[in-house]
Amino acid sequence: MSGIAYIVSAPSGAGKTTLCKMAAKEFPDIRNSVSYTTRKQRPGEVNGVDYWFVDDAVFDGMVSRGEFLEYADVYGKKYGTSKKDLDAMLEKGMSVILEIDVQGAANVRKRMEGGVFIFILPPSLKAAEDRLTGRGKDTPGEIKRRLGIAAEEIRKAPEYDYIVVNDDLDKAFETFSSIIRAEKARSARVKGALKGFFGGLIG
Amino acid sequence: MSGIAYIVSAPSGAGKTTLCKMAAKEFPDIRNSVSYTTRKQRPGEVNGVDYWFVDDAVFDGMVSRGEFLEYADVYGKKYGTSKKDLDAMLEKGMSVILEIDVQGAANVRKRMEGGVFIFILPPSLKAAEDRLTGRGKDTPGEIKRRLGIAAEEIRKAPEYDYIVVNDDLDKAFETFSSIIRAEKARSARVKGALKGFFGGLIG
Repeated sequence: MSGIAYIVSAPSGAGKTTLCKMAAKEFPDIRNSVSYTTRKQRPGEVNGVDYWFVDDAVFDGMVSRGEFLEYADVYGKKYGTSKKDLDAMLEKGMSVILEIDVQGAANVRKRMEGGVFIFILPPSLKAAEDRLTGRGKDTPGEIKRRLGIAAEEIRKAPEYDYIVVNDDLDKAFETFSSIIRAEKARSARVKGALKGFFGGLIG
Repeated sequence: MSGIAYIVSAPSGAGKTTLCKMAAKEFPDIRNSVSYTTRKQRPGEVNGVDYWFVDDAVFDGMVSRGEFLEYADVYGKKYGTSKKDLDAMLEKGMSVILEIDVQGAANVRKRMEGGVFIFILPPSLKAAEDRLTGRGKDTPGEIKRRLGIAAEEIRKAPEYDYIVVNDDLDKAFETFSSIIRAEKARSARVKGALKGFFGGLIG
């Protein structure tokens, strides 16, 4: 059985990255996709782990060669998901979590079959604000801007297959990991694997 | 949020009833549907718990009044699921597991929106045979007949939303309970509940 692509979006401050990291720890056959970006590497970030940090020339070259499944300009910086990297993982039977913003996810939905789309919601916009303030990475102005964008992004939640409300982290992860497990049992995916097993009983 | 109907089918000896009972224990908001049947009450079975045991006149009356979501004649005995009983539970927000044979599930699929269809598979026909023999409820002739029917039923597995292979009971239950949890997070179901919460942000 080939791997599954889980596309995960969330407004800032919903706890998306934490949930995705927990999933990669829990499931040995799951990796988090590493995006390409032109934004500056932050202290503590590792090239090839958090992102592939590239300059505009390299990024634009990949765009022109059609190497991205999706790419987007967010807050003036470019982010892209390599189609080749993803396909290589899926073909090996590894599943991949792609953290992609709402705009990028809409592009993936158009260009890829069989992806599982998950939207993480903060319990409230106030909670998102508190989380952004608490992590201390953004200026108050940046936080205000992100929250305005968050409200717009939340409108797109119904386009996703699943909505996980991250009120309590343990409960949210139970739901998130249940989605990952359940999708492996989707009959469209299991069918192929069972074909040989049952001696052709399942067509 | 109204409850979810989980329709579970399996060939004899797949361990379906065990999994459904475990689910009703694990989830406080889930009940197993109690079917109506004209078959004889077996020792240890409780009326209103295992089945509602009725005679042919009562059963046929319910059929003629259109009270069944599905009903079927299996091995010469009638089995039916009350639509009224089910709707009452779902409206109260309770989710319901319906153990229904392949033929009945096909009827439910035509007549009900939003049901989740799960097929439980034994790891092999040999394993199903061993399980039927082990529980000591059926004669060798009956077991042989059930296995012949099982092979036919397995062909219908791809019509279900999910396929759970019951090789190891704990693993099968982890998948089964993950499906139950994941389906609660389906965006089509969450949307309504979030509408008020986010002050109309989600349409």
